[in-house]
Amino acid sequence: MTANSGISDQALAIAAKVEAFVRKTVIPYEKDPRRDHHGAPTDELVMEMREHARAAGVLTPHILSDGSHLNQRETAVVLISSGLSPLGPLACNTMAPDEGNMYLLGKEGSPELKDRFLKPMVEGRVRSAFFMTEPADEGGAGSDPSMMQTTCRPDGNHWVINGRKTFITGAQGARVGIVMAKAEEGACMFLVDLPDPAIRIDHVPNTIDSSMPGGHATLTIDNLRVPADQMLGQAGEGFRYAQVRLSPARLSHCMRWLGACIRANEIATDYANRRHAFGKPLVDHEGVGFMLAENLIDLKQAELMIDWCAGVLDTGSLGTAESSMAKVAVSEALMRIADRCVQVMGGTGVTDTTIVEQVFREVRAFRIYDGPTEVHKWSLAKKIKRDWKAARD
Amino acid sequence: MTANSGISDQALAIAAKVEAFVRKTVIPYEKDPRRDHHGAPTDELVMEMREHARAAGVLTPHILSDGSHLNQRETAVVLISSGLSPLGPLACNTMAPDEGNMYLLGKEGSPELKDRFLKPMVEGRVRSAFFMTEPADEGGAGSDPSMMQTTCRPDGNHWVINGRKTFITGAQGARVGIVMAKAEEGACMFLVDLPDPAIRIDHVPNTIDSSMPGGHATLTIDNLRVPADQMLGQAGEGFRYAQVRLSPARLSHCMRWLGACIRANEIATDYANRRHAFGKPLVDHEGVGFMLAENLIDLKQAELMIDWCAGVLDTGSLGTAESSMAKVAVSEALMRIADRCVQVMGGTGVTDTTIVEQVFREVRAFRIYDGPTEVHKWSLAKKIKRDWKAARD
Amino acid sequence: MTANSGISDQALAIAAKVEAFVRKTVIPYEKDPRRDHHGAPTDELVMEMREHARAAGVLTPHILSDGSHLNQRETAVVLISSGLSPLGPLACNTMAPDEGNMYLLGKEGSPELKDRFLKPMVEGRVRSAFFMTEPADEGGAGSDPSMMQTTCRPDGNHWVINGRKTFITGAQGARVGIVMAKAEEGACMFLVDLPDPAIRIDHVPNTIDSSMPGGHATLTIDNLRVPADQMLGQAGEGFRYAQVRLSPARLSHCMRWLGACIRANEIATDYANRRHAFGKPLVDHEGVGFMLAENLIDLKQAELMIDWCAGVLDTGSLGTAESSMAKVAVSEALMRIADRCVQVMGGTGVTDTTIVEQVFREVRAFRIYDGPTEVHKWSLAKKIKRDWKAARD
Amino acid sequence: MTANSGISDQALAIAAKVEAFVRKTVIPYEKDPRRDHHGAPTDELVMEMREHARAAGVLTPHILSDGSHLNQRETAVVLISSGLSPLGPLACNTMAPDEGNMYLLGKEGSPELKDRFLKPMVEGRVRSAFFMTEPADEGGAGSDPSMMQTTCRPDGNHWVINGRKTFITGAQGARVGIVMAKAEEGACMFLVDLPDPAIRIDHVPNTIDSSMPGGHATLTIDNLRVPADQMLGQAGEGFRYAQVRLSPARLSHCMRWLGACIRANEIATDYANRRHAFGKPLVDHEGVGFMLAENLIDLKQAELMIDWCAGVLDTGSLGTAESSMAKVAVSEALMRIADRCVQVMGGTGVTDTTIVEQVFREVRAFRIYDGPTEVHKWSLAKKIKRDWKAARD
Repeated sequence: MTANSGISDQALAIAAKVEAFVRKTVIPYEKDPRRDHHGAPTDELVMEMREHARAAGVLTPHILSDGSHLNQRETAVVLISSGLSPLGPLACNTMAPDEGNMYLLGKEGSPELKDRFLKPMVEGRVRSAFFMTEPADEGGAGSDPSMMQTTCRPDGNHWVINGRKTFITGAQGARVGIVMAKAEEGACMFLVDLPDPAIRIDHVPNTIDSSMPGGHATLTIDNLRVPADQMLGQAGEGFRYAQVRLSPARLSHCMRWLGACIRANEIATDYANRRHAFGKPLVDHEGVGFMLAENLIDLKQAELMIDWCAGVLDTGSLGTAESSMAKVAVSEALMRIADRCVQVMGGTGVTDTTIVEQVFREVRAFRIYDGPTEVHKWSLAKKIKRDWKAARD
Repeated sequence: MTANSGISDQALAIAAKVEAFVRKTVIPYEKDPRRDHHGAPTDELVMEMREHARAAGVLTPHILSDGSHLNQRETAVVLISSGLSPLGPLACNTMAPDEGNMYLLGKEGSPELKDRFLKPMVEGRVRSAFFMTEPADEGGAGSDPSMMQTTCRPDGNHWVINGRKTFITGAQGARVGIVMAKAEEGACMFLVDLPDPAIRIDHVPNTIDSSMPGGHATLTIDNLRVPADQMLGQAGEGFRYAQVRLSPARLSHCMRWLGACIRANEIATDYANRRHAFGKPLVDHEGVGFMLAENLIDLKQAELMIDWCAGVLDTGSLGTAESSMAKVAVSEALMRIADRCVQVMGGTGVTDTTIVEQVFREVRAFRIYDGPTEVHKWSLAKKIKRDWKAARD
Repeated sequence: MTANSGISDQALAIAAKVEAFVRKTVIPYEKDPRRDHHGAPTDELVMEMREHARAAGVLTPHILSDGSHLNQRETAVVLISSGLSPLGPLACNTMAPDEGNMYLLGKEGSPELKDRFLKPMVEGRVRSAFFMTEPADEGGAGSDPSMMQTTCRPDGNHWVINGRKTFITGAQGARVGIVMAKAEEGACMFLVDLPDPAIRIDHVPNTIDSSMPGGHATLTIDNLRVPADQMLGQAGEGFRYAQVRLSPARLSHCMRWLGACIRANEIATDYANRRHAFGKPLVDHEGVGFMLAENLIDLKQAELMIDWCAGVLDTGSLGTAESSMAKVAVSEALMRIADRCVQVMGGTGVTDTTIVEQVFREVRAFRIYDGPTEVHKWSLAKKIKRDWKAARD
Repeated sequence: MTANSGISDQALAIAAKVEAFVRKTVIPYEKDPRRDHHGAPTDELVMEMREHARAAGVLTPHILSDGSHLNQRETAVVLISSGLSPLGPLACNTMAPDEGNMYLLGKEGSPELKDRFLKPMVEGRVRSAFFMTEPADEGGAGSDPSMMQTTCRPDGNHWVINGRKTFITGAQGARVGIVMAKAEEGACMFLVDLPDPAIRIDHVPNTIDSSMPGGHATLTIDNLRVPADQMLGQAGEGFRYAQVRLSPARLSHCMRWLGACIRANEIATDYANRRHAFGKPLVDHEGVGFMLAENLIDLKQAELMIDWCAGVLDTGSLGTAESSMAKVAVSEALMRIADRCVQVMGGTGVTDTTIVEQVFREVRAFRIYDGPTEVHKWSLAKKIKRDWKAARD
């Protein structure tokens, strides 16, 4: 699938195993009716698939048994494979937001926090959520984290947190939470056990996507008391930790949805070769064949952007600009690909007969999740200006 | 909304009344939870809204009390208004496929057929379906009607119909059906009472759209016996009748969904003016303001294409090429508009907090329903070639 | 070509006469080698074509012999016809900037100014230029007229003008100039005889377009003395006069270049029907036929936007927003059309074998001339905000 | 500029030297007025620049002094650098069609042919041309080589060639020709000395591009006699040799024009940072900043596609599909980039004040040269069908 030069044989073997597992074991579950009100698989269904993944040796496959993490280029080949079904990341425990949460805890967690919170996540026994974004209409941090309004204040051996959060993916049903709040020292992050009565889910809207258990909740944090030793790292360092998580988590979205679009394109290609219209197979109509050719090109470009950005992250760079570039390029390419797959399949493309219709909806949301395209272009334009000034001076 | 030159005051007054009704009475129903499994309003909900429409004098507003039909340019202003809510056409009885079915019966039905089938439809008491498209994977007519495989054969004073149909919008729950089938003489059309045990609904897939009660059924017609006097017009003329219905019905889709996108744009515009990010209202960010400016232009172009094509139909032309041009231009413009509305609203845009998310899904389907964009371009290319040859000779 | 409802028979007859003249008499001149260094026709060539236009009764066809001006919708059908060749507007005296200058003088000029300056222009004996835009890199008014730096001050019975202007189309070779400058009272406009030694052409760059005699000059106005009675209207009213000229002149660009793209599309269509590749006529390849179908749609939309905006201007409105919408929509549509024509014709499309290559270049420039697309979107976004506030209050 | 992993230090050093040379020595020549009628540099100007390149050690930099050729990934970094000015490839002898001709001769030429024809080319002393494409309107091979009509027949110790060729870049002024013709055995290739009276240049059209000395000639080969030992390789193998040249030559176009667009983007970025409009630097307008951000992404994607395709070629693959993918992706990306650069610079962007205007024109032609986008999509669609069938069987 990729040129893969410089990717370890071990990682390629893991990716191959994950792909085989998804194709053979996960795809049949796509017709399983167990879905929550939001259209996402129930936790029961998730845990059943994870049993199979565990047995197949592909649960949390990007984190090795010694606790070490594949590098980002290696992670890419594995997560792309897991994404070949929208259920694949759930089955393999490579899904958002858990993948990013595990990454962050692995990098910044103390041994105690890792043992207590990371271990069950890596074992695929619990789901987690990341409490950062806030309702923009209440003055909080939408795509603009500097506007964060959730507060935390020390109270004896605890911290007390108050605020409102929105679009908290997977909060419903999560057992582990990472909560971001502002103290006098600056932003802080806390590990918390869930559910907690001080965290009240106000609303889980129906959304255009339906792959993420628990949906995207809006909730109120009302005097949540967290023991001081559950703070991640140091007070005031919360934004730095968010940065650590930011680019890899953003890029892992690109990986998984690329996998989904590879599969959607397989389905559309198969359809175009089997079905006839106006006297010949659809694929022989240039109007259709050209769309598939464009998919081929867009898929390759998405793969290359992910590999490039992953390579930058593997040098130790935060990769903020690079992951913005990759996120915009990949999400927009995937939208074009998914849209063409729907169109190639005509009426069938807008039904749930195949996953193509779902992939289209998921990818539409992805152009907004983790920063809308426009916010990334805005920050890239700032960088262009900074670079120009630096070169001038 | 339009220049409206040459549109009668009567029609403008009807449109204004419809708009007021939709804004005041229908929009509150958008939050009503009564939905069928496919996400469409239940018939109970539809009939409740129609009571209000009847009382407000806006039920089937494009067909006057003397049975006469507004011309197409007039119909446009009325149907655009009814489309301001996805529920509006259902409430006002201007929805597909009923609007097209009423149009066809009004044009080609005998007095007896009109009295028996058209009257209850105009009164908004029953829903209807149009049985034309067939499963392409079984060799039937997808977007290519010449491949029709459903047959009808005379049997005494009846016709007996056999075949398979797919994407039959509203078949589930319809009381009136117009069924197309092939006889020795050529294509025929029949009016039938529904439900009928000889028409077996095999499957109603979930689809990306959710505005049409009954969804889009796949079904089997198994020895359906229809009295000979329920044939519409003459045997062998079925394709001609399909042509009569074709362009106006296609254009009425454009009208209704333009209304929906006008509304989506109002919602996005309001959002962009109220919400702030990075220190100023969203609308003051060019990245957002430009999208709204592009919507303004696309909305105007969609309106002009509809008005132009309607004017062509009003001359008595079948308008086949013109309605293909309008369908492509309008559906693609509406997709861009709906997509920008979602994007402007960020996370909120992909939730069901507003109708923007639904409009996006509906418009995605519209690019395929009534002929995918590519089929229309294909037939336009044929016409370009014919015209070139005619000019040469 | 258009629905043309409400356009007078007189105007349609003029348009038909202009079209016949351009097709028969002007098109053969497209191969005439008399071009200035910038690629534009020499004045000798222009005047020779105008002799033919005069004889054919199609010189300045949009201004009637009694001095009255066709309304804007009528003007559209005439100017579109004149644009069928890039030489047509020059031959018929419907070209920029003269057409706009004549319009402005006809609206705002005193009888004396009309007799002295307008008459020879309408007679097609002289060319004119409009001195407004200034070098942005010197702090002057690029697309932002409020930054104007050219000054005028009274000195006895004269005004003395100083400043720098850039992109002054046709200044080289013009006999009449309309110069804009700032006085204490505000902006002023002056009619001046050209050439004048106080107006020094510094530079006429080569540009991507090549249809406009004299090119687009950068020049210095150095103590230009203008008799006070050559001021147009009142001191301080210069921006109002610029507004009078603005929308109609902008729209007339759309008209002429639509004509050019109609012709380019005729050429590409003919090519696609005559040439074969991979075993069949180009037009039978969907990849080509679809491009021609898209052209058909884009041409229609451009025509409709022009007609709509012209109708708004005919109500007496300044049509600022409407002409921005039309300019963006039409210029971007024409770019797509011209680009497809080039592509359909392959290697031939990038040579000067036909006018398609030139039309592509002209239309590229048109997306910038008279305000780049982005400036229009910017002002439309401002209007959207204003309208939202007005509706709220 | 690139990740460059796996590219030799030697190649990176060469690329750096080439970049320094182009920036310091070649760019000042961009204002040199010595141009032929078609706008391309005269051979005098070319040879003068080559003297400098020879002195700087950057003449034919991708072919080492021992005659070995950099691999394709290495070639990419060098040719991108040479492309930073449209004059750079001419100065460094990395231009089309010479670069491809040298590559082919280096791969397939006998020692005698190399000594006689390749040596002076590598030394930068002569230009060459590749005689393949034929006039499609005469039934010859446009983008469809199977239609070749030029013939060669043995006559004693010679071959006699007859036919017509078109778009033969650089034929005017070339000293070496590679001529393709059909014999009974199949296609053949010949090395010929130029000029030769039997090759009559009929026409060199003006074209939208202007970087290639000699332009793109249409010519007649009239009983050209070529000694038998000037046949390249074997009779009947001509198409195979064309294949050897095809992908690398196609990709080298991508490399050079990527260089040109990198430079155009530097110019536009500088402009956007220096100029002000509506109260702030252009770059601070999102409408402008977003275009530059999109350029950043498109430039990166173009670079990655080139590097990927080059890597495929370096494995020894013909890379036919991969180079089609790269050619479409890169040429379309460069068009968007060049178009945005023009637009960012407003009026200045359409003048010859900078090279941006030229780069825009060159890139427009590039979307057609070496196979229009549509022909590549067509052949990719064929491949998709073949691959599907192979997977099925």
